[in-house]
Amino acid sequence: MKLQDLETPCLILDQDKLSNNIHKMNVHLKSLGAKIRPHVKTVKSIDIINMVMNDQCIGIAVSTLKEAEYFLDKGIKDIVYAVGIAPVKLDHVAELMKNGADIKIILDNIEQSKAVVQKGKELNITYQVLLEIDCDGHRSGIKPNDPALLKIGKYLNDQEGAELKGVLTHAGESYNCKSVEAIKQLAAKERILSISCAETLRENNLPCPIVSTGSTPTATFTDDLSGITEIRAGVYMFKDLVMAGLGVCDANDIALSVLASVIGYQKEKGWIIIDAGWLTLSRDRGTASQKVDQGYGLVCNEYGKPLPDLIVSGTNQEHGIISDRNGKQINYRNFPVGSILRILPNHACATAASHNHYNLVNTNSTEIIDVWHRINGW
Amino acid sequence: MKLQDLETPCLILDQDKLSNNIHKMNVHLKSLGAKIRPHVKTVKSIDIINMVMNDQCIGIAVSTLKEAEYFLDKGIKDIVYAVGIAPVKLDHVAELMKNGADIKIILDNIEQSKAVVQKGKELNITYQVLLEIDCDGHRSGIKPNDPALLKIGKYLNDQEGAELKGVLTHAGESYNCKSVEAIKQLAAKERILSISCAETLRENNLPCPIVSTGSTPTATFTDDLSGITEIRAGVYMFKDLVMAGLGVCDANDIALSVLASVIGYQKEKGWIIIDAGWLTLSRDRGTASQKVDQGYGLVCNEYGKPLPDLIVSGTNQEHGIISDRNGKQINYRNFPVGSILRILPNHACATAASHNHYNLVNTNSTEIIDVWHRINGW
Repeated sequence: MKLQDLETPCLILDQDKLSNNIHKMNVHLKSLGAKIRPHVKTVKSIDIINMVMNDQCIGIAVSTLKEAEYFLDKGIKDIVYAVGIAPVKLDHVAELMKNGADIKIILDNIEQSKAVVQKGKELNITYQVLLEIDCDGHRSGIKPNDPALLKIGKYLNDQEGAELKGVLTHAGESYNCKSVEAIKQLAAKERILSISCAETLRENNLPCPIVSTGSTPTATFTDDLSGITEIRAGVYMFKDLVMAGLGVCDANDIALSVLASVIGYQKEKGWIIIDAGWLTLSRDRGTASQKVDQGYGLVCNEYGKPLPDLIVSGTNQEHGIISDRNGKQINYRNFPVGSILRILPNHACATAASHNHYNLVNTNSTEIIDVWHRINGW
Repeated sequence: MKLQDLETPCLILDQDKLSNNIHKMNVHLKSLGAKIRPHVKTVKSIDIINMVMNDQCIGIAVSTLKEAEYFLDKGIKDIVYAVGIAPVKLDHVAELMKNGADIKIILDNIEQSKAVVQKGKELNITYQVLLEIDCDGHRSGIKPNDPALLKIGKYLNDQEGAELKGVLTHAGESYNCKSVEAIKQLAAKERILSISCAETLRENNLPCPIVSTGSTPTATFTDDLSGITEIRAGVYMFKDLVMAGLGVCDANDIALSVLASVIGYQKEKGWIIIDAGWLTLSRDRGTASQKVDQGYGLVCNEYGKPLPDLIVSGTNQEHGIISDRNGKQINYRNFPVGSILRILPNHACATAASHNHYNLVNTNSTEIIDVWHRINGW
């Protein structure tokens, strides 16, 4: 079976690039003496996480309880559910615990803490809790100097039903950094603020065994992780155009692409029409605010080699429009109807989410070597 | 079971609004003597299409062969696959025909036509073909005055393996219109150009029994459909904020919403944090270019009543940030942790696509009256 035989659109995963991306992060974090907690929200596939897990890994991070359920079923027990807990989900977390999950939840306010304690007492169980810290103003979390940190920590430590396990932060602003130097500075800040919160807790006789940080950009460029007990990152396995725009990787490192067929043209406009629209590519325009705007994705030939001038400049649900980014004339004879192209995604998490399987290939090959399932939804 | 019991995020569908949206389009098109071919790409659910199908309907339009397969399995045989055919999909189309589908494919160039004829001869079957017309420069299609129209029509008519069944166009530019008047003008143009293409074919002794047009905005505002044999539209069933911005409906008509839980705040920034991010809401920012930018969605209370100042101003994968569009102070006591909100989508097709089921409610109620399945993928 070859790429040419697949019904388009569908996801292609370059196993060599995937393996290389995983290896590079392992080597880098090993050199810093750090443990890894891979974030599965990008790949959502046990076949891929099986490639990642080694003795550097201490468990996984998930973004949905569905992921927790799926990976628990595959035998992975140590799980951090890295989205602030909603009270309505506590019964589901309890069920996962009953089924053997060593699951940690996160929160950043006293109302959540009270809901957790109340449900823990009601069910006669102990929820393990990490306090979410806001290290960069990106979204959720307790400010490092906010008295709420100690107040919530003490409350959880004093009550039945919950157990304080540490602190967690995510430097999400690293996606908006304008230079590698800025990412390095944010990585240092992420580490220092996490450690300072951990110390505040410990100085007040509160337990803080876990100090969890991470994002693919900061994990890539950090040069000191002392005091950090685990690094969470996910998109590094696939990489994407946003990561390439940040300097985290090169476009040639991106393991994920969408296979599309040429179905027509509007030649007077310089357009090639493909059967890959926003449903398969996603609406993500993360490169729009970067130095190089890649439209809805960068076009590659069937072997995955970027054709650097061609981008998907427009999309409808099942249609994509390819054009030259500089308005140059396209040589249409190179793109006959029915020929296949591969589109590199802006944001791998978003692109993969429309699909339920990966078609595996090796670099520079069009032979399908395997098909791996992935999960979606909640 | 009530909305309060559902794990967030999930899709909520107001059955009363859905029913009303369907009824209004039926009445309008009936008054113009038009037949309807509902486009199922938005709803992808037999339960909803069962509400639509009546003696005004002559079949469905689909955007993927997976939809065709699903609805054929549910007993709907008359299907237009309204995306230009890729040669690699012709075997799948043949299989659907073998299973009883009266399926029409579309194309706009001679290379596609040759692939169709060749495969038809090879399999000893006859593909039914509509010629796609470009009525507004939006994406694909033959220009109405292009000699290719007759050339392709004659080729298909002369060859075994294919049968010319008519013309089809989609006024996709109606989504970008700046006034109802502009939509009305585009609706007239869509009709006139389709009819002129049909006449060109007929004057040359080519068959053209089908003249298919449609888009929700043009179908809503057209006042003359003489000569058009069928209208395709899909998003009118749900409506969305883009449609509201175009004047097609009011925000109160929107039947689809995403249920979310409040999980925290960044009060000094005026933020409420919810557990609904871009994965559940979609990355669609279709209202960004309209008069009123609704961010990633308009916030409603649990009964579906819009809180017109509150929008989802930012998203991560599983987080949404709600803020006041005018920067006014939010009364946080109205939004305790664990309270639920409903988010109206920019683009219903994109938002629904992350989900595999709809939770049905009545207007102004939080009681779940039914759960309907939907399909996704290719």
